[in-house]
Amino acid sequence: MVKGLFITFEGIEGCGKSTQAKLLKEYLEKKGLKTILSMEPGGTEIGQKIRNILVDPKYKGILHPVTEALLYQADRNQHLKEKIIPHLNNGYVVICDRYQHSSLAYQCYGRELDIEKIEWVFRNIVEGIEPDIVFLIDIDEETSLKRVNKRAQVENIELSRFEIEHKNFHKRVRQGFLALAKENNNFVVIDGKKSIEDIHKEIVSIVEKRLKNV
Amino acid sequence: MVKGLFITFEGIEGCGKSTQAKLLKEYLEKKGLKTILSMEPGGTEIGQKIRNILVDPKYKGILHPVTEALLYQADRNQHLKEKIIPHLNNGYVVICDRYQHSSLAYQCYGRELDIEKIEWVFRNIVEGIEPDIVFLIDIDEETSLKRVNKRAQVENIELSRFEIEHKNFHKRVRQGFLALAKENNNFVVIDGKKSIEDIHKEIVSIVEKRLKNV
Repeated sequence: MVKGLFITFEGIEGCGKSTQAKLLKEYLEKKGLKTILSMEPGGTEIGQKIRNILVDPKYKGILHPVTEALLYQADRNQHLKEKIIPHLNNGYVVICDRYQHSSLAYQCYGRELDIEKIEWVFRNIVEGIEPDIVFLIDIDEETSLKRVNKRAQVENIELSRFEIEHKNFHKRVRQGFLALAKENNNFVVIDGKKSIEDIHKEIVSIVEKRLKNV
Repeated sequence: MVKGLFITFEGIEGCGKSTQAKLLKEYLEKKGLKTILSMEPGGTEIGQKIRNILVDPKYKGILHPVTEALLYQADRNQHLKEKIIPHLNNGYVVICDRYQHSSLAYQCYGRELDIEKIEWVFRNIVEGIEPDIVFLIDIDEETSLKRVNKRAQVENIELSRFEIEHKNFHKRVRQGFLALAKENNNFVVIDGKKSIEDIHKEIVSIVEKRLKNV
């Protein structure tokens, strides 16, 4: 029996989801709730090794889209079985930076793999669970690329294999996320151009409502 | 259109398949045939990184069986698209040390995952191809463990995560391979207790017949 609350953050590169996930974790911990913040890919030690393959920019044009999709599902399965499900069963709030909807947006809308097949693997092989709330922090692809390039410059870091994708790819991914939000009633779409504080308040008010109803 | 010949070698640890695959490659090259010898997992650079996760003995009891199965399919997809299919299309004989039947024997018979689901992923996600000939070098699990331990001692190497599995696991995997051989008419079962030379001759005579019929 799952007793905790499973919250995921989704959106294209630079939307602010990692910042918001962290702020939410701090807020819930201050309230005294048992909370973990994790991420995909790379939420486990094995997942970190899978992540290193996935983000490496040298594999652009080499890593086949289907290999990519299967590596994400492998990472997700390990993450669910080793970390997410045990914590939910222990009554934790589990916050996850990216989850299955990123696979659908990036590999199916972005790379144009068959969405029904990737969903089939998630349902029947991984036997994945659905988040209670999916926060989609929505920004347009121009804003995304601007923010990502600025961050790389300021922090002097190399762009990942996804960050160096062309603008049309990010546009398709964004449209994918918005389409998924329409189809799934656990989605909450948030305007990612608002201030960090305003977005945090919006997220907190939704989570608070949900906690009252648990 | 596939123009080459696709030959795989299967069997439990220590059966001698890697030795036989190498001898067959040398034989075909001497005949002047374009031949490559590859392996799974790890037939590509990306695959080598996946292989490192799969064989690492420290993940025994941690790497979830479904993660394992998905990593094998990811490795296989990359291998097929990057190496096997392009070489077959170029008229090569492609010899592969382990392939899909290892996944079925190890993850389905060995780890008891649902064989229909793993086959579904291979057919529908990876869109895998069938080998022209599968050489199953059959030995019993006692011989397997004896040979593997001796090799580790002589070569002073650490045993892999599969080699340290218990005897019943290897017994189930062997029975799995034999069951697959009964169901698939591309299998040739060879007694792995015969001498290296005798096995090589047997393999060569079968491959020669096949080459005449191409």
